[in-house]
Amino acid sequence: MATQAINLAEKLAGFTEHWQPRTVAEYNGHDIMVVKAQGEFTWHKHDETDDLFLVLRGELTIELRDRSVTLHPGELFIVPRGVEHRPVAREEVHVLLIEPTGTPNTGNAATAQPRRVV
Amino acid sequence: MATQAINLAEKLAGFTEHWQPRTVAEYNGHDIMVVKAQGEFTWHKHDETDDLFLVLRGELTIELRDRSVTLHPGELFIVPRGVEHRPVAREEVHVLLIEPTGTPNTGNAATAQPRRVV
Repeated sequence: MATQAINLAEKLAGFTEHWQPRTVAEYNGHDIMVVKAQGEFTWHKHDETDDLFLVLRGELTIELRDRSVTLHPGELFIVPRGVEHRPVAREEVHVLLIEPTGTPNTGNAATAQPRRVV
Repeated sequence: MATQAINLAEKLAGFTEHWQPRTVAEYNGHDIMVVKAQGEFTWHKHDETDDLFLVLRGELTIELRDRSVTLHPGELFIVPRGVEHRPVAREEVHVLLIEPTGTPNTGNAATAQPRRVV
């Protein structure tokens, strides 16, 4: 187990790449991750898991097929399993994500980022 | 599914009671909750689930039997299942919690708070 507090801003300060989540802790078979993002991600869905986004800094829009939801710091949104979505950030945004360990971030193992633990 | 962003500060502004978590969203069978706390909670453990604490405002100390961990805003800690702990806050603290839906907050159904959804 971790022996001290996990400071999310410190974890985010340790890398610069976009759309490459870092796992900072594990919880009930899920990865607690932080990610920096800017621009448009790919449209995707996860058939086996809900997708949780909590914005820590900046602004993130989650496009859905019929509407979009914009998140500011301290705001979260959960995309239910099976629902197509596309995260978009005009400027860099810092986000907390939770996904079951091993979930491909694109919804597709062939195009997913590898799991990175910090 | 929720149709808009969930603003954690707004949810917290909606109640004043301490140690009474409010469920603000559901994620993979878990409740995403916010709680206001001050003072000392009871020593307890959860044999079936890890316990996630993310401080949003103020300062929270999680006492363990052999040491303690103090969390500030933007810091999280996960108490692994089966580990005894006691949350303590000298002044009011606002915290995001995640637990499987139905988990008694004291680790004991007889003394737990009822599930409150806002």
